[in-house]
Amino acid sequence: MSAVWGNKIKITIFGESHSEAIGIVIDNLPAGATLDMDEIKREMARRAPNGGEFSTPRKEGDEVEIVSGYFDGKTTGTPLCGIIRNTNTRSKDYSMFKVVFRPGHSDYGYFLKSGGNNDYRGGGHSSGRLTAPIVFCGAVCKQLLREKGVKVGSHIMSIADIKDGMFGVDIDGDKLENLTKEVFPLLDKNKFEPMRKIIADARNEGDSVGGTIECAVTGLQGGIGEPFFESVESRLASLLFSVPAVKGVQFGKGYELSKMKGSQANDPFEFKDGNVVTKTNNNGGILGGISTGMPIVFNVAIKPTASIFKEQNSVNINSKENTKLKIQGRHDSCIVVRAVPVIEAVAAIAIYDFLR
Amino acid sequence: MSAVWGNKIKITIFGESHSEAIGIVIDNLPAGATLDMDEIKREMARRAPNGGEFSTPRKEGDEVEIVSGYFDGKTTGTPLCGIIRNTNTRSKDYSMFKVVFRPGHSDYGYFLKSGGNNDYRGGGHSSGRLTAPIVFCGAVCKQLLREKGVKVGSHIMSIADIKDGMFGVDIDGDKLENLTKEVFPLLDKNKFEPMRKIIADARNEGDSVGGTIECAVTGLQGGIGEPFFESVESRLASLLFSVPAVKGVQFGKGYELSKMKGSQANDPFEFKDGNVVTKTNNNGGILGGISTGMPIVFNVAIKPTASIFKEQNSVNINSKENTKLKIQGRHDSCIVVRAVPVIEAVAAIAIYDFLR
Amino acid sequence: MSAVWGNKIKITIFGESHSEAIGIVIDNLPAGATLDMDEIKREMARRAPNGGEFSTPRKEGDEVEIVSGYFDGKTTGTPLCGIIRNTNTRSKDYSMFKVVFRPGHSDYGYFLKSGGNNDYRGGGHSSGRLTAPIVFCGAVCKQLLREKGVKVGSHIMSIADIKDGMFGVDIDGDKLENLTKEVFPLLDKNKFEPMRKIIADARNEGDSVGGTIECAVTGLQGGIGEPFFESVESRLASLLFSVPAVKGVQFGKGYELSKMKGSQANDPFEFKDGNVVTKTNNNGGILGGISTGMPIVFNVAIKPTASIFKEQNSVNINSKENTKLKIQGRHDSCIVVRAVPVIEAVAAIAIYDFLR
Amino acid sequence: MSAVWGNKIKITIFGESHSEAIGIVIDNLPAGATLDMDEIKREMARRAPNGGEFSTPRKEGDEVEIVSGYFDGKTTGTPLCGIIRNTNTRSKDYSMFKVVFRPGHSDYGYFLKSGGNNDYRGGGHSSGRLTAPIVFCGAVCKQLLREKGVKVGSHIMSIADIKDGMFGVDIDGDKLENLTKEVFPLLDKNKFEPMRKIIADARNEGDSVGGTIECAVTGLQGGIGEPFFESVESRLASLLFSVPAVKGVQFGKGYELSKMKGSQANDPFEFKDGNVVTKTNNNGGILGGISTGMPIVFNVAIKPTASIFKEQNSVNINSKENTKLKIQGRHDSCIVVRAVPVIEAVAAIAIYDFLR
Repeated sequence: MSAVWGNKIKITIFGESHSEAIGIVIDNLPAGATLDMDEIKREMARRAPNGGEFSTPRKEGDEVEIVSGYFDGKTTGTPLCGIIRNTNTRSKDYSMFKVVFRPGHSDYGYFLKSGGNNDYRGGGHSSGRLTAPIVFCGAVCKQLLREKGVKVGSHIMSIADIKDGMFGVDIDGDKLENLTKEVFPLLDKNKFEPMRKIIADARNEGDSVGGTIECAVTGLQGGIGEPFFESVESRLASLLFSVPAVKGVQFGKGYELSKMKGSQANDPFEFKDGNVVTKTNNNGGILGGISTGMPIVFNVAIKPTASIFKEQNSVNINSKENTKLKIQGRHDSCIVVRAVPVIEAVAAIAIYDFLR
Repeated sequence: MSAVWGNKIKITIFGESHSEAIGIVIDNLPAGATLDMDEIKREMARRAPNGGEFSTPRKEGDEVEIVSGYFDGKTTGTPLCGIIRNTNTRSKDYSMFKVVFRPGHSDYGYFLKSGGNNDYRGGGHSSGRLTAPIVFCGAVCKQLLREKGVKVGSHIMSIADIKDGMFGVDIDGDKLENLTKEVFPLLDKNKFEPMRKIIADARNEGDSVGGTIECAVTGLQGGIGEPFFESVESRLASLLFSVPAVKGVQFGKGYELSKMKGSQANDPFEFKDGNVVTKTNNNGGILGGISTGMPIVFNVAIKPTASIFKEQNSVNINSKENTKLKIQGRHDSCIVVRAVPVIEAVAAIAIYDFLR
Repeated sequence: MSAVWGNKIKITIFGESHSEAIGIVIDNLPAGATLDMDEIKREMARRAPNGGEFSTPRKEGDEVEIVSGYFDGKTTGTPLCGIIRNTNTRSKDYSMFKVVFRPGHSDYGYFLKSGGNNDYRGGGHSSGRLTAPIVFCGAVCKQLLREKGVKVGSHIMSIADIKDGMFGVDIDGDKLENLTKEVFPLLDKNKFEPMRKIIADARNEGDSVGGTIECAVTGLQGGIGEPFFESVESRLASLLFSVPAVKGVQFGKGYELSKMKGSQANDPFEFKDGNVVTKTNNNGGILGGISTGMPIVFNVAIKPTASIFKEQNSVNINSKENTKLKIQGRHDSCIVVRAVPVIEAVAAIAIYDFLR
Repeated sequence: MSAVWGNKIKITIFGESHSEAIGIVIDNLPAGATLDMDEIKREMARRAPNGGEFSTPRKEGDEVEIVSGYFDGKTTGTPLCGIIRNTNTRSKDYSMFKVVFRPGHSDYGYFLKSGGNNDYRGGGHSSGRLTAPIVFCGAVCKQLLREKGVKVGSHIMSIADIKDGMFGVDIDGDKLENLTKEVFPLLDKNKFEPMRKIIADARNEGDSVGGTIECAVTGLQGGIGEPFFESVESRLASLLFSVPAVKGVQFGKGYELSKMKGSQANDPFEFKDGNVVTKTNNNGGILGGISTGMPIVFNVAIKPTASIFKEQNSVNINSKENTKLKIQGRHDSCIVVRAVPVIEAVAAIAIYDFLR
């Protein structure tokens, strides 16, 4: 397993859905930074299940205890460890998944990796719950980025086949931060009702839907990125694909670029107020793996929640027989909404790792 | 700059388009492996410009000299360094790009990173030429993977808006290896002519087109992948986004998954000949970042060649003025064809790094 | 700061002497290993201050709570996090060291690194207390090593100028493990009384003494070690020099080798019971950075405890004046005894990282 | 094998004694630095065998060809690769060492690691010849350090049992640099004749002698070093123990500290010309793993050359029998003199890695 990520900062994640605790150690933060604990709580609340319409009925406190690296209201520069106790867990729900693997989940993979010694309760280490420490870390990085003039925000770009718009070349940081205050961030608010309905319909059917999230980072200077192997895209993608359920990543216009001609795809340079900018931003603020000074723009595909309440085909690894399985319990019928702060968090972490 | 990649093996790349040489050091290969030098040459030839229809008119020998780590016809387990001399270079073509940045290229980024000390000739370190040592390394990894029963192959999934099909759940290794023997690998050969034409048209207009490549890896056992941060997707994506011009990566059905319901997207498990398989492979052989034993399937978006022969808008960083620029020289109007072996190479490297 | 170490396993340490907690995350342990919790407690007790003759009068419980990576009495292979709460702390003792730096301590260095934002209480992150999670991790690694036939042990080689003997070429694993059961491990028990006395004398004078520790690892197969840069010596030394107060490391005969002739220093190979061994072991079981199959033998120099109760010269960084300082509180007059399990722990960690 | 080292810079070494070439890739150098090629040549010449009194009779050109990362007389910031061709090699000398292992050498270890596929000629990858690219890299780092006011130098502290003095607290950078201009650097020149004689005697006997080297780094600001795991000592030691024949490392007074009382060992702080200094420098400029601003001082033990011309006992791994072996060829009877620039080089590399 590889629980450590980062070059300038190093983050180490730990925990399972039903272990005593989950948490994260953030190494090499600057000393002397005051963290806004209220903002951290708000970010945690965006991700936490709250029993609301777009969330599982179970509630998780997700209170982070900082046990090191913070003294007299400031970071000390030594490893900052944040711990979240697991409290509201119902382990009995999961016992059968030890031998009957849930389709779309990692149960089988962990079974193979661990020789059957994995903590199968609630998805164990691959539970979406592990994104809680990621959001905590992202909240820390967002604060440190803001001091450097860098802001991060995102919107739901689609739910199932219902599309919101896309960020324009003129996206600005304040607008991004406003989006982070919304429960269901959209560019076109008219899309809320149809999206809400398609999620509700899936829930009523015992099924689930996926979607896409577009995220932007403004204020990032040009010249950031470390090719050959650590392009801005590589670093962002490596973290984005660590987030459960992410199955695709595009930068700028992404796959649309593959259909354009070079004369359309190339973003022409020009001077604007004495600065070099590009007239369009098809490449999402990154050329040759290096930032251009334009907003970093990317989007991700989130697959539908793997936990559905319909009967599914699976195998019983003990009896070596095919079997049927029906998942009980409490699960989101669409995780896209709660994934929004997670995507922003990993964007903030990846970008801050370049700038630290 | 970050020229080193890998966990179990470590690869270190060096060189610029017009420096004395380019090359790669591959650390921690197994000792005692005989390399098939003819296969290495064939792989190099797939990528090398050959003056043919789908390539720049310039020719590059791309002969790899192995200077270390290989003795008596076998690897020694010490770092294997392969060097490719740069010979057919016309440096005068590039002098103006020191101060006038080519749209779609990394000139501006390298200018910022290096304070104007970058080797601007031919794209310098970000030249597509740097993919030659990657293909060499990929050829080594492909051979080592084959001994483990793992095979890699790919096809052109689209050029501009003309689509080939997609790999089915039944893709097998021999078929993949056959694809690697074709200049223009397609599932549906009827697509060759329209694709050829759209590339020729772009060339005639002084413009360029992009496309997509789908790649598969068969024979990879289940249980491979190291979440939280080093999922199979994360490692593959981190290398894929190091390849110049890649702007999007999807695993399995990728963005299509975001439009499916969970009941459609989940791949049901079943026993087949005593093995656990999935009936469909929407998730591209990866669940929770871990291989399932099904073929690994992904595709990438390649943007159109940034070097076009039409006049473009740009800036002169010395005079601080907007300007026009027209690229001369020798460039592919569609790099997708030559990118195919590169995508396979990075897939082979990423997968081998897990298995070594 | 760099709180992460390791290649195959990765360990991440966190905490300060007086923060809420200290701890360690151990990544990539094998799944399915049962940990002997009693052995872990014994190892922790060897290091913990116990109010005894060779220890500070303060007592620390040093109880490790494993919060992740352990399920149903076995490791799961996911990150195992052990946390130790800081309880018996008297923060008021330390307030003056924020501006007046203790000679021999890292106060000044941390002041510079953090711009004065360091947690100066009890040495903060550089406190000897941070060796508690190291001993925990070492206890885990010792158990995993024992399953591979590898054993670790050590003895006090000297206190001040009173010398014990040195390990012979015939050192065996059982003897090493017996040494770990002694409070004051010596090869020659006659040295105990004079050593005890010199420590007591230093304590009575308000002064301190140092010493040396010799450690051995038996059962390690030949061929382990990864030159050029990760020789067995490099990896061991890198961890040993992370232990506070270690100022020298020698392998085998170390500095004595520099006075020998080649014909004396070279360990001749011979067959013994069908195995290749060396008749002598001057090189401490390592040649060219690679294990030979002979016991790994090394020793370390531990400087005298920096905290003494005599008046010392120092500076006040606020007033920019020279000043006197006198340390109060509770400190060991000789840390060598409590350092023994720490040295064994880092040896176990470094060797296990090669073998995992 | 682990051929890559470094955090901020990354160096990758390759080559064997008799392979086509040896070399090093230096990643993440700053752009825009002009390298003094004459100084690089001088440093290379210090290490190169020159047929002189303190060297093997074979001569090596050791000319470095920089093939990348250097353009228009300046570094570009991309990976700088330096290659040294192997020319004066007599491979026939070594064929018998494939199965009969030389005592004191790594032949047996590499045999085990590679399953007998190692390049046994001239020590292969573990040859002292691999220190040539290290000296090249050190020469680059020395130049970059000098621009930051940091200087590196050393002297021969002992040959066999004949001792030179030790650096005092007042060592300065100019004195260090003057030492680098001497073939046989000593603090006390009266020691030259007896040292020369003991080396000559060993040569005449077909034997060898070892020694120690003391090295200092001046001008390094306080606050450098990254505990917990990347203390200044840890990073220096990790590189120093990669140098063939190094068997011990001490910082400051090292093992002498273990015999001192705390009141003697602690270096008292004081203000001098407005700066915090310590009156003594027993700790070698490092406390708690962090630089204090005082000179970094350390010394290393070099074992006697393993290649001697006396008959030695060994084993034949093919016949499984004990045997005698007598080394022919050309070897230094004392490698300490040629090791001096190597020790300085790794010191420069380790310190520069912190400062880049």
